[in-house]
Amino acid sequence: MKTPWWLTPCKPVDRDMQAAAAEHQQQLTKPAGSLGQLEELAVRMAGLQGRLKPRVDHVWIAIFAGDHGIVAEGVSAYPQAVTGQMLHNFVSGGAAISVLARQLGAQLDVVDLGTVTPMLNLAGVRHLQLGAGTANFATGPAMTDAQGLQALQAGRDSVLRAKAQGSELFLGGEMGIGNTASASAVASALLNCPASRLTGPGTGLNAAEVSHKARVIERALALHAGHLDDPLQALFRLGGFEIAALVGAYVACAQEGIVALVDGFICTVAAMVAVRLSPACSEWLIYSHRGAELGHQHVLESLQAEPLLDLGLRLGEGSGAALAVPLVRLACDLHGQMATFAEAAVADRPA
Amino acid sequence: MKTPWWLTPCKPVDRDMQAAAAEHQQQLTKPAGSLGQLEELAVRMAGLQGRLKPRVDHVWIAIFAGDHGIVAEGVSAYPQAVTGQMLHNFVSGGAAISVLARQLGAQLDVVDLGTVTPMLNLAGVRHLQLGAGTANFATGPAMTDAQGLQALQAGRDSVLRAKAQGSELFLGGEMGIGNTASASAVASALLNCPASRLTGPGTGLNAAEVSHKARVIERALALHAGHLDDPLQALFRLGGFEIAALVGAYVACAQEGIVALVDGFICTVAAMVAVRLSPACSEWLIYSHRGAELGHQHVLESLQAEPLLDLGLRLGEGSGAALAVPLVRLACDLHGQMATFAEAAVADRPA
Repeated sequence: MKTPWWLTPCKPVDRDMQAAAAEHQQQLTKPAGSLGQLEELAVRMAGLQGRLKPRVDHVWIAIFAGDHGIVAEGVSAYPQAVTGQMLHNFVSGGAAISVLARQLGAQLDVVDLGTVTPMLNLAGVRHLQLGAGTANFATGPAMTDAQGLQALQAGRDSVLRAKAQGSELFLGGEMGIGNTASASAVASALLNCPASRLTGPGTGLNAAEVSHKARVIERALALHAGHLDDPLQALFRLGGFEIAALVGAYVACAQEGIVALVDGFICTVAAMVAVRLSPACSEWLIYSHRGAELGHQHVLESLQAEPLLDLGLRLGEGSGAALAVPLVRLACDLHGQMATFAEAAVADRPA
Repeated sequence: MKTPWWLTPCKPVDRDMQAAAAEHQQQLTKPAGSLGQLEELAVRMAGLQGRLKPRVDHVWIAIFAGDHGIVAEGVSAYPQAVTGQMLHNFVSGGAAISVLARQLGAQLDVVDLGTVTPMLNLAGVRHLQLGAGTANFATGPAMTDAQGLQALQAGRDSVLRAKAQGSELFLGGEMGIGNTASASAVASALLNCPASRLTGPGTGLNAAEVSHKARVIERALALHAGHLDDPLQALFRLGGFEIAALVGAYVACAQEGIVALVDGFICTVAAMVAVRLSPACSEWLIYSHRGAELGHQHVLESLQAEPLLDLGLRLGEGSGAALAVPLVRLACDLHGQMATFAEAAVADRPA
């Protein structure tokens, strides 16, 4: 049997270039270490991009959208129709990520994997229609294996388009009413952790509603028990189309050699699945922010991630990752454009 | 006797506009509160700028430099000549803040208040030469009242230049070998707190050297005891020319109606002095980051500040504030350019 594409190797990091960049970073006219996390970031980018002075001129933002059958259990504050309405908002320029993409000069790639809105046909959106949303994972698998494989491939396809456009940074975002419930379920399965520790208000549930949501997830985890050790099966049974697409995208980024900037809770859960499927892909993932959703901190810790921002964000759409793009760019600019002590004739501290 | 300029009133915040902006923010197509700190920031900017949709097109970065007599006590890792050398690096484009100013499209205003380098005359630098650095505050006052008043005015003058250029955001930065010792001393005096709690490695002292630095500061605080209740006298006796310039700049920003983005430890100590002199000016100060220097967190807490970034920075030059500029800009862009639920025909959550 042919090896599935997501198990083929990731692009190796250029360790020699990374070491050379670390050496260069030490020569810049500032106290060593004084740029904190941004120094490590620039050095890491050098190893990933294979150039002494990394750059982020071309940014690709893929938004994956899908609806969730689990919403039938009353786990979301917003009506399900919002997923389709927001797809329109993305391409009309009025959504948060639309504003951010414009300001960053990033290319926006909007992929509809399947919503409950029939016959949705929006200019500028790729409608894949894997189904009218996922099935209710409290009563059965969220998606078939065939749907899951198509969703993974949809994520990879976006990365291949990003590569064809010369993108140097890939941001994945998601939209899907109910998808924090799905992400909490996947995370609970992979971390073998009670759902209550990973379940939060999403777009705005109150405390009683959050408790209800956690109980729904616990019931679903019991239903699927015995099938959740395999990360791919956990993803297909509990996940969403857009979450599976993100998983495929992160693995593909690592294979194609594009740095991925990971957004909030849902994206970080997708990143965790990607790392379980392909451990080496973790090298290519940079975590943009620590969000407000309860489970995010826990999942970040399990990945030993040190995010760049901590602003209490919980919007999704890739917006937190987009907000971190200027920091990645400026870290590269500082690394690439600052003078060395020798160039500037500035005295370094006595060795 | 005429009221000193720093005691004249600050510009009032436009509370009606702030309330209107808060109302507008609630209408945007996202879960209420999901942009975390950035929502409050945009609303606050609206009240300060007096427009429903605040903007940050023109950014002014003032770098104030000065040398410190306290360096004679062995409190810095770098030789004192670096202050003058870095002035050259600022205007040559090789320093961190030079790179950041270029990338942000910001205007850089470099002011030399007095260094130990004789006859320094650099194109693009304003040389004020209040003295060959401050005097050693371990043995006497760092500066005379006359020097202190000139330094305050130098900060204000930069703000007036910024205003003449239409700047919408003022960033102050500092350069001065030895100035963390001076900032720690001022903070200890104002917070009535042991120097050891506010004294850190600065540009890179080891643990023994940090202890020595704290002891030097404690000795100086004892020497000046009885003169430190007045924040202006604490500033003149323990501060630096560049720190006094920052104090003057922050007060002047609040008077002239320009939002100030405060950098790291030294700038935050200057902001604390400014707020003691003119409490209303705190409305106009936005704190950009929580830095690595020991005392910074403590001083931020005393000001009830919630900084935007926490990246382990300790470079100075205004670099941390510059790194936060894109967040301020994007917060304004999101606030000003996102569609409302009504405009985008997106269903809001049931009330």
